[in-house]
Amino acid sequence: MKFSLRPQDAAFYDFFSRAAQNLMHGTEMLMELALPGADVQSVSERLGDLEHDSDQITHELYNKINSTFITPFDRSDIYNLGSGLDDVMDHLEAAGNLVYLYGLTKLPALPREMHELVDVLDQQAKITANAMPQLKGMKNLQEYWVEINRLENEGDRAYRMLLVRLFSGEYDALTVLKMKEVADELEKACDAFEHVANTIETIAVKES
Amino acid sequence: MKFSLRPQDAAFYDFFSRAAQNLMHGTEMLMELALPGADVQSVSERLGDLEHDSDQITHELYNKINSTFITPFDRSDIYNLGSGLDDVMDHLEAAGNLVYLYGLTKLPALPREMHELVDVLDQQAKITANAMPQLKGMKNLQEYWVEINRLENEGDRAYRMLLVRLFSGEYDALTVLKMKEVADELEKACDAFEHVANTIETIAVKES
Amino acid sequence: MKFSLRPQDAAFYDFFSRAAQNLMHGTEMLMELALPGADVQSVSERLGDLEHDSDQITHELYNKINSTFITPFDRSDIYNLGSGLDDVMDHLEAAGNLVYLYGLTKLPALPREMHELVDVLDQQAKITANAMPQLKGMKNLQEYWVEINRLENEGDRAYRMLLVRLFSGEYDALTVLKMKEVADELEKACDAFEHVANTIETIAVKES
Repeated sequence: MKFSLRPQDAAFYDFFSRAAQNLMHGTEMLMELALPGADVQSVSERLGDLEHDSDQITHELYNKINSTFITPFDRSDIYNLGSGLDDVMDHLEAAGNLVYLYGLTKLPALPREMHELVDVLDQQAKITANAMPQLKGMKNLQEYWVEINRLENEGDRAYRMLLVRLFSGEYDALTVLKMKEVADELEKACDAFEHVANTIETIAVKES
Repeated sequence: MKFSLRPQDAAFYDFFSRAAQNLMHGTEMLMELALPGADVQSVSERLGDLEHDSDQITHELYNKINSTFITPFDRSDIYNLGSGLDDVMDHLEAAGNLVYLYGLTKLPALPREMHELVDVLDQQAKITANAMPQLKGMKNLQEYWVEINRLENEGDRAYRMLLVRLFSGEYDALTVLKMKEVADELEKACDAFEHVANTIETIAVKES
Repeated sequence: MKFSLRPQDAAFYDFFSRAAQNLMHGTEMLMELALPGADVQSVSERLGDLEHDSDQITHELYNKINSTFITPFDRSDIYNLGSGLDDVMDHLEAAGNLVYLYGLTKLPALPREMHELVDVLDQQAKITANAMPQLKGMKNLQEYWVEINRLENEGDRAYRMLLVRLFSGEYDALTVLKMKEVADELEKACDAFEHVANTIETIAVKES
């Protein structure tokens, strides 16, 4: 039995875990858009609520940083990790909201390549949520980084093929522009997951 | 009476104040574009001059960092704050220049949502300029952060509604593309103001 | 004769030099696209191979950071410099790949302004590769920063004039969208070169 974990530290890890859990719920909501007869308005509203909750978590985290004397690792790294997780949520919420705002659901279906990109995000969210409890010991994170980077490359490829599809002449120019906005938010979410992994790598390098 | 402020430090705070004052002048120039019969070429040229002056300030700041033995806070944070303020100016200048280069003034009027976004920037510039003198004591900055974040959210909403308007079918595809470039620069300026606030928050966290 | 350079350090400088050499080869490949009868598929494939090699270098660098007790400068700065060089390569590869994927070569020629932007990148790559051996002594880097920033401004101007050209009405909307994607990657590469220079400046400020 090990007692090295101070109660203060537990609070920080809890913030990160809650934020990462929210990302998992967020990508699950975006996955619904692939289902026939998806309720896009409901997805958009629930993503808005989730993003609001994540803002709250980030806000509490910042207060905690300011009110804690000894933090488990560098204050600025905790700050970066918190804002990194928050960035992912912002892009997920934006993607869902834009599909709704632009009325893209009047199309028979969103392009297959867009769902592939969402699927990559869903996998990134799952392994990010799994990695959070391992932050305590800074152990077994190698696999998480390798996998996040592999997924980011896969997301990049899916994004490029999505643009090829959008620019194929199949859609009118305004529809292309709308779907490209959504695609860009999804791609930024994919990058933001990698940025979170890089922040954790920076922390681990300092701790090692 | 308090003498804790070294003359060296005063120079640094002066750079930040001048840079933030320029941002305030910059958003005021963009506000002119909402007026009937605005002289877009003049706005673009004056923004170019202002950006040149800000580049000069940033350059002097960097020289000051290199030639000063004891800086009021971390060199890399001073550097980040300086380049953050510079980034805002770059986006303001780009927005004004693109309206001119693309000849967007041949339209009857720019969309109302674009002016709303400029108005948010103008408010961000004002409170950023007001916050600079408070850097010395790192006091009363909480209100500034809360307000910058609130404005960034408002800017985000205005940006989204601007895109909905642009994609509504009211404009031809090339005009949409041109106005979207301008909108993107305005939105990046809005983000860049938030980035400045985040840098100041990072500094305050270290000082506390 | 001076023996201050530890063998460990030499390995780090070697990684940076190799990564920067690859960027030089990358911009040379993009320069081929300006030649009549350019083999776009070949350019895209060779850029893909080069990017793969750069990924490998970055990966080895990260392993080296983790397995080295005393690094020539801050671990996080080495990390930033490595990932900064990697970012440039990603954008160069993306630009070449998109020209190929979108079949932009079916046009009589890419716009002149696009080649001007590639030419700026080629100059940035050359001076970045030249600067790497000077990292050891942190000497004579001033000229490199000034020149990178000058080139970044030149690239910015070329990018804006490229957009003016693309939005002139000369091309159909889908072609504009495709070429804009390529232009955006080139512009990001230009920014990423500046980011590399900024990271080196941050390191030099700490060392001074």
